[in-house]
Amino acid sequence: MEKLLISLEGIDGSGKSTQLDLLSKMLQSQGRNPLILREPGGTTLGERVRGILLDGSVERSAIAELLLFCSARAELIRRVILPTLDEGRVVILDRFIDSTRAYQGYGLGLGATVIDAALRIATGGLTPALTILLDIEATTGLRRAASASNGVADAIEGRELAFMERVRQGYLALAEREPERFLTIPATKPHEEIAQQINERVLKLLNS
Amino acid sequence: MEKLLISLEGIDGSGKSTQLDLLSKMLQSQGRNPLILREPGGTTLGERVRGILLDGSVERSAIAELLLFCSARAELIRRVILPTLDEGRVVILDRFIDSTRAYQGYGLGLGATVIDAALRIATGGLTPALTILLDIEATTGLRRAASASNGVADAIEGRELAFMERVRQGYLALAEREPERFLTIPATKPHEEIAQQINERVLKLLNS
Repeated sequence: MEKLLISLEGIDGSGKSTQLDLLSKMLQSQGRNPLILREPGGTTLGERVRGILLDGSVERSAIAELLLFCSARAELIRRVILPTLDEGRVVILDRFIDSTRAYQGYGLGLGATVIDAALRIATGGLTPALTILLDIEATTGLRRAASASNGVADAIEGRELAFMERVRQGYLALAEREPERFLTIPATKPHEEIAQQINERVLKLLNS
Repeated sequence: MEKLLISLEGIDGSGKSTQLDLLSKMLQSQGRNPLILREPGGTTLGERVRGILLDGSVERSAIAELLLFCSARAELIRRVILPTLDEGRVVILDRFIDSTRAYQGYGLGLGATVIDAALRIATGGLTPALTILLDIEATTGLRRAASASNGVADAIEGRELAFMERVRQGYLALAEREPERFLTIPATKPHEEIAQQINERVLKLLNS
């Protein structure tokens, strides 16, 4: 496979960072030089947008939030993701289109038509070959996330349990709709076991 | 007429500010209390987005710029424009959807399908009852704008003549497509004459 775009998804506390790190190391051990990107951010524009989104004092409607995320994403795709894929490097995204669907769609209640239209504008149709969903119950995720951040929550993480539960169910619905693209793993499994499942699937993609 | 939304459009140097001021005074003399809004801006989120857009050091693709404008607009509509129209007040917008079509569409070359999809998401279909287009040749407009700002140009105004010429032609094409909504006035006419033409149309709308 020439171009490989992978996304990691899951609610806060699902262990994305740990698995991103392990996947990156595995790819490096294979002589690859993967690029790991975090959304929103990764460009000057994206970091500025991230600053707005994480600032709890900036009121925003769900639509405005959706469009801000999409703006940062459009910039990241055109400036970083596409050129890096063109170099033959693997790109791994910490959150991508499914975060938008899960958080702004299922979480905030924006309609799928609006979300999909916004995503189409932002991505031009770019879709990951593989999306790893680390699935965890909302209560467990929130507890883990709170202890990881010493209880300090930002505007995005500060949302309540019912919201996170909707997001989680949204993720599961998305995964069910595209079983080829999604690899769903229970995030309560041991890290090494999760990593092994991920590695197997990624290596298969790289060797196909 | 119960709800009246008016937009003023035109390239820089077309005299929008002067006419906004005159129109506002005319409405006040009629016992109205119009709200004048500038895009992007008018909300906390919008002002933050405006800061990014006017910062020439922030690189941006045309799509990212489009989505940023649309985000600020979505917020302004939901937080300010719709509630103000609901109070029965006239709302006058210094630039609105047609700026997006003229600048990002005709100027930057984004396709009409993408633009219209983004506008639909941002506005939910909200359209001015009247759009006043102050038409001026690009060279004249640029010269006027440069002298008004003492030659200090920001990232948006700093674009070159060919761009402004495309924007101007775009505006004219839009006006031709919707003759009912647009009132196109040559911006080289005397201020008072322009104001009179605008007042007549606005009063007709208010009394209809």
